[in-house]
Amino acid sequence: MDEFALIERYFRRPDQPPGDGVVLGPGDDAALLLPPAGDELVMTLDTSLGGHHFPDDLPAADVGHRCLAVNLSDLYAMGARPLWFLLSVTLPQADEAWLAGFAQGLFDLADRAGIALVGGDVTRGPLSVSIQATGAVTPGRALRRSGARAGQRLAIGGVPGQGGLGLRHWQAGERASVSARHLARPAFPLDLGAALVGRAGAAIDVSDGLLQDLGHILKASGGLGAELDLATLPVNEELAALDEADRYPLQLTGGDDYCLLFTWPDARPLPPGTSDIGMITEKGPILLRYPDGRTEPARPGGWRHF
Amino acid sequence: MDEFALIERYFRRPDQPPGDGVVLGPGDDAALLLPPAGDELVMTLDTSLGGHHFPDDLPAADVGHRCLAVNLSDLYAMGARPLWFLLSVTLPQADEAWLAGFAQGLFDLADRAGIALVGGDVTRGPLSVSIQATGAVTPGRALRRSGARAGQRLAIGGVPGQGGLGLRHWQAGERASVSARHLARPAFPLDLGAALVGRAGAAIDVSDGLLQDLGHILKASGGLGAELDLATLPVNEELAALDEADRYPLQLTGGDDYCLLFTWPDARPLPPGTSDIGMITEKGPILLRYPDGRTEPARPGGWRHF
Repeated sequence: MDEFALIERYFRRPDQPPGDGVVLGPGDDAALLLPPAGDELVMTLDTSLGGHHFPDDLPAADVGHRCLAVNLSDLYAMGARPLWFLLSVTLPQADEAWLAGFAQGLFDLADRAGIALVGGDVTRGPLSVSIQATGAVTPGRALRRSGARAGQRLAIGGVPGQGGLGLRHWQAGERASVSARHLARPAFPLDLGAALVGRAGAAIDVSDGLLQDLGHILKASGGLGAELDLATLPVNEELAALDEADRYPLQLTGGDDYCLLFTWPDARPLPPGTSDIGMITEKGPILLRYPDGRTEPARPGGWRHF
Repeated sequence: MDEFALIERYFRRPDQPPGDGVVLGPGDDAALLLPPAGDELVMTLDTSLGGHHFPDDLPAADVGHRCLAVNLSDLYAMGARPLWFLLSVTLPQADEAWLAGFAQGLFDLADRAGIALVGGDVTRGPLSVSIQATGAVTPGRALRRSGARAGQRLAIGGVPGQGGLGLRHWQAGERASVSARHLARPAFPLDLGAALVGRAGAAIDVSDGLLQDLGHILKASGGLGAELDLATLPVNEELAALDEADRYPLQLTGGDDYCLLFTWPDARPLPPGTSDIGMITEKGPILLRYPDGRTEPARPGGWRHF
């Protein structure tokens, strides 16, 4: 089966509605889309490589879910509502069982998020998935990294450290744990980003470790600092069972969390399901407040791609 | 140097204007773009792998040019004017000399085409480049594969066979030939696609071999046929010097040509620089007319990704 037949069988869904604004979907040199009038578009592109960004033996349906989730997380962190995505898959051979599983995991999440596949390609090579996702946001309302100010609260949606602990579990063969399931199929509240629009100061998708991504906010906002209250970091039951000396590094520097980290400018209550974990200060470094009250400067760290 | 520093050094150009409609370029979770009011967007995504889609030893500047050219070719084949692109690069190590060369080749072409880099990522892994390019077209005016009708002329811009002969030259170490230069830096008329809007019947980017891509037009247009006049196929001097038995297979089934194949519905002259190479007929197969006047059905063939 060649590229065109594979795309036809696994990625065309003629029985589905084409998606809002989709004038021409997969099958030509490019897709044709009519953007929502007056909105700004939010566009992201991420490549995930087998053995680098996800385990080589991750089931195909999880790969499909995960690679789309990584891109959706970027859209939500900007406060965007998802519209369309393009998909480029490279795989060692035309493995139909793998593609069927991949497409199922991909479309399950795509349908829940309301995002439509509009094109892409399938080629032979080492396993990798590139997805480009587009969303829409009211002009001027996108959540940016640069909107933090000293005195704002620091808050998070999701559980930092799940990705790192999940990888440890996966590698140890414990694949049914909550954390391993999060690694395989990152889950995050699909409506949180939109709830932050017009209210949060700054926001970022936490994918390379909480401290490193917090650092991006502080730098983009003009060189601010932060105090992080470790006792308030949300946990799942598996993280809660760890010693603090083991847990904090996972929560502060582990990758693959897909949490939404944001700042909150006033005294209004935080959105449901999010946690107050500290505050933005005038200048660095980031201070970690331990449960016994002492504070220490954070050492830089996080997932590095090189 | 980590991912963020690499992007900052090689892919941010703070001294350049950001590009039309670019509200927020590289550096946040996603780019923010304001699409041209009333236009349709044209979106394509292609992944190029070292050793598969281009020679492993292609100089970095050529890789940068080539990977963008492949996407621009898709935009032009839809009649779109280029707007923005996202870039995802995977490379085995943080090789700064390679990245500097790559960025130079990429931006040289981007600036000529008027397309702005707005985001993406750089990660570690086997050499691969994914580019997602977006263009704009007046609603309803995009060139599609499905617009061919029996009786239309068949025409081409560019020289089919250059990609295949260029690969042969490259592998033989003849890297300064016209064809090898085309393989390294595919060149095509940047204004031809726009000149076809509202005039051509169907159009397609020829990247997988002339016969195969012609087949896509014929299938998308409802199962038509075509007669191809081999004596009229444009050549460069290196193709002209080959025996016909060697040249025709290269011209009909070689990949990487980045020609623009289109149909022409009336007797008006073709756009400058394009050639009349046959006509669309009621039904298949595709007939090849040889210079001595005999015709033969074409055997299917072309670049297959699996």
